[in-house]
Amino acid sequence: MTHLAAPRYDVTEIRKDFPILAREVHGKPLVYLDNGASAQKPQVVIDSVTKTYSEEYANVHRGLHFLSNLATDNYEAVRGKIARFLNAPDEDGVIFTTGSTFGLNMVASSWLSPRIEPGDEIVLSVLEHHANIVPWHFLRERQGAVLKWVGLAPDGSVDVNEVIDAIGPRTKMVAITHMSNVTGAVIDVKTLAAAAHERGVPVCVDGSQAAVHLPVDLNDLDVDFYAITGHKLYGPSASGALWAAPERLAEMRPFLGGGDMIREVRQDCVSYADPPFRFEAGTPGIAPIIGLGAALDYMTGLGMEAISAHEADLRDYAAERLGALNWLTVHGHQKEKGAIFSFVMEGAGHPHDISTIIDRKGVAVRAGHHCAQPLMDALGVSATCRASFGLYNTRGEVDALVDALGLCRELLG
Amino acid sequence: MTHLAAPRYDVTEIRKDFPILAREVHGKPLVYLDNGASAQKPQVVIDSVTKTYSEEYANVHRGLHFLSNLATDNYEAVRGKIARFLNAPDEDGVIFTTGSTFGLNMVASSWLSPRIEPGDEIVLSVLEHHANIVPWHFLRERQGAVLKWVGLAPDGSVDVNEVIDAIGPRTKMVAITHMSNVTGAVIDVKTLAAAAHERGVPVCVDGSQAAVHLPVDLNDLDVDFYAITGHKLYGPSASGALWAAPERLAEMRPFLGGGDMIREVRQDCVSYADPPFRFEAGTPGIAPIIGLGAALDYMTGLGMEAISAHEADLRDYAAERLGALNWLTVHGHQKEKGAIFSFVMEGAGHPHDISTIIDRKGVAVRAGHHCAQPLMDALGVSATCRASFGLYNTRGEVDALVDALGLCRELLG
Repeated sequence: MTHLAAPRYDVTEIRKDFPILAREVHGKPLVYLDNGASAQKPQVVIDSVTKTYSEEYANVHRGLHFLSNLATDNYEAVRGKIARFLNAPDEDGVIFTTGSTFGLNMVASSWLSPRIEPGDEIVLSVLEHHANIVPWHFLRERQGAVLKWVGLAPDGSVDVNEVIDAIGPRTKMVAITHMSNVTGAVIDVKTLAAAAHERGVPVCVDGSQAAVHLPVDLNDLDVDFYAITGHKLYGPSASGALWAAPERLAEMRPFLGGGDMIREVRQDCVSYADPPFRFEAGTPGIAPIIGLGAALDYMTGLGMEAISAHEADLRDYAAERLGALNWLTVHGHQKEKGAIFSFVMEGAGHPHDISTIIDRKGVAVRAGHHCAQPLMDALGVSATCRASFGLYNTRGEVDALVDALGLCRELLG
Repeated sequence: MTHLAAPRYDVTEIRKDFPILAREVHGKPLVYLDNGASAQKPQVVIDSVTKTYSEEYANVHRGLHFLSNLATDNYEAVRGKIARFLNAPDEDGVIFTTGSTFGLNMVASSWLSPRIEPGDEIVLSVLEHHANIVPWHFLRERQGAVLKWVGLAPDGSVDVNEVIDAIGPRTKMVAITHMSNVTGAVIDVKTLAAAAHERGVPVCVDGSQAAVHLPVDLNDLDVDFYAITGHKLYGPSASGALWAAPERLAEMRPFLGGGDMIREVRQDCVSYADPPFRFEAGTPGIAPIIGLGAALDYMTGLGMEAISAHEADLRDYAAERLGALNWLTVHGHQKEKGAIFSFVMEGAGHPHDISTIIDRKGVAVRAGHHCAQPLMDALGVSATCRASFGLYNTRGEVDALVDALGLCRELLG
């Protein structure tokens, strides 16, 4: 295996930054391969949350006292960190959210819903996570929108040209993932956005997986909306962001109503604060957002190129080792995909059983439809097992997965 | 002052549970009187969050591996804790949220919006926080609902009979706070709910403040919706819950769409999970919700009656001491109100200046409209200072506030 590129950082050292990775499960070292669902947290993130609550906590924005100003400064500093992490054109387009689900629902409700007439179309792909499907289904159920689906390419991706061809005169939005959470396929959203914009159609990108594994450059991609989720980015629960392009931001109506998002509230009228605050109603996730800032600092410290290179090595190694198991079918083999492997065992074993069995060996993978039932339909399965890798995983953990699957095969075969 | 009731617990000991209370601000001991905006966190809550991330973290519900099952168990256990804390009839009506703003928007969007025809009325009071105003303004702006406002009673409360009288044949909802975040007034929502139900109208209660300071008994109150917010309850950012009565719960349409809230997603249709999961789209605030459970355990350990009695003592003492300052006007003097004091200084000093000056003495109060502009209008002011007390505050801190205000008076007078 020595022909594969060497990792750009010492993963053994990196692993020491994540306290949970030192623990055992069922008396075995934890092999955490469920990063697609959520990532573990480095000590700096945990410390950031602890420090906020122990020393620097108050509500933000509305106070004039020391702790409120301090918390506000710490919290607002994260807006710029997110903008720089995504190389966004500006930080005013960064709306703090609790995750991609919230962000994508905001796009559907605040931008698209007021623009939908019955028969208007939303183009989306079968790769989408339910978070990038159900908000559009709401517009179908409630306003008569039509969902136009683009099917699966043989490599577990979607053909961007098919997506572009699906755009018609009634298309009001293209909703697309940047990286499939099931097959790992990366979608060329830059080409898609350019073509969609020629046709006057905005593009909403689910970056939940891509932002974790690839350097994202919003200046270059030129999409209209980009949603990220903090807990997958090694950050705290209930953190995230939606980036909206300036023109779209100006067109969005408020999403949730409450404190902090208003200019003035009277009995008979209400006016709203400028973006991005207009879209941030109520007390936000203060400690989670500050912790997300620490997570992005941590990732940036390692370097997204280094993380991406490390994971590319894991991907290639895992593809080789899993590919050698002739009783395993891996769905998705795009060459430059993320290190996410969905598979089923031929002839034996429901994915749930496989997951449960290899868990006894300390190997944590997910089994199910991965919130992507249309993709399961396209693959012709009801469920898969999924091993999804992160910046702290190792080739040794690929081996542990393969060994555990071998044992499972013996038990079930 | 010895005629006042003695506190039911040793507040000096209790204060040691809150690490931030040991810190100084501007070289002075922190006197944190901004609990109405957000409460500080006891070590057990901070430890709970740390333990989750360091030892017991994974995504919930969809995993079959050890950590996912463990996190799910820890997370789901909080549903029962919230139900017991509120003495709710059942825990299936407990919907996890990120706070009251989210919960109240959910009521407006999921229950009321599909039922609103132009001209239908929503009854609410001038005491409401913007979180319990702006969601209804959305329905006015977008669907032609009419907001029927009930005015201020002389004691800083609202007369429940006036609220009841405002209910008419077109009233579809009464939205009311249980405790004003500005005047501390407590509203008799039980009487209100009984009368509203006789007229076939549901009642949505903002419990953001009340649940922090009073024992809440939903079995007794018999309201339809009750929203609480975790960060005011000594819990983490981005935690909270909406309780919905069974009949209302069954009538609510989904709010956000995404993972975890569906039964089945196909290209041309979608069906939804049973409540409460139907209303919990996407990866939830796992660590915040678990931390909220720790906060409720902490409060229950002290006892809500003891907390309430301690704060009643602070309220009476603060009312006496602030009332003796003839250059201070305190708004709201309901006898059994919460320990929340909004005031303005006669003849001198904008509330913002006062807040900034007393902050130099370590005293943290809030200044502004407190997200209650209709109430400011009713009081005839644009802003107030607000000192809001929590379970860890002391009579000595009331003295510190009074001393700091005296100094401020000298500077500005």
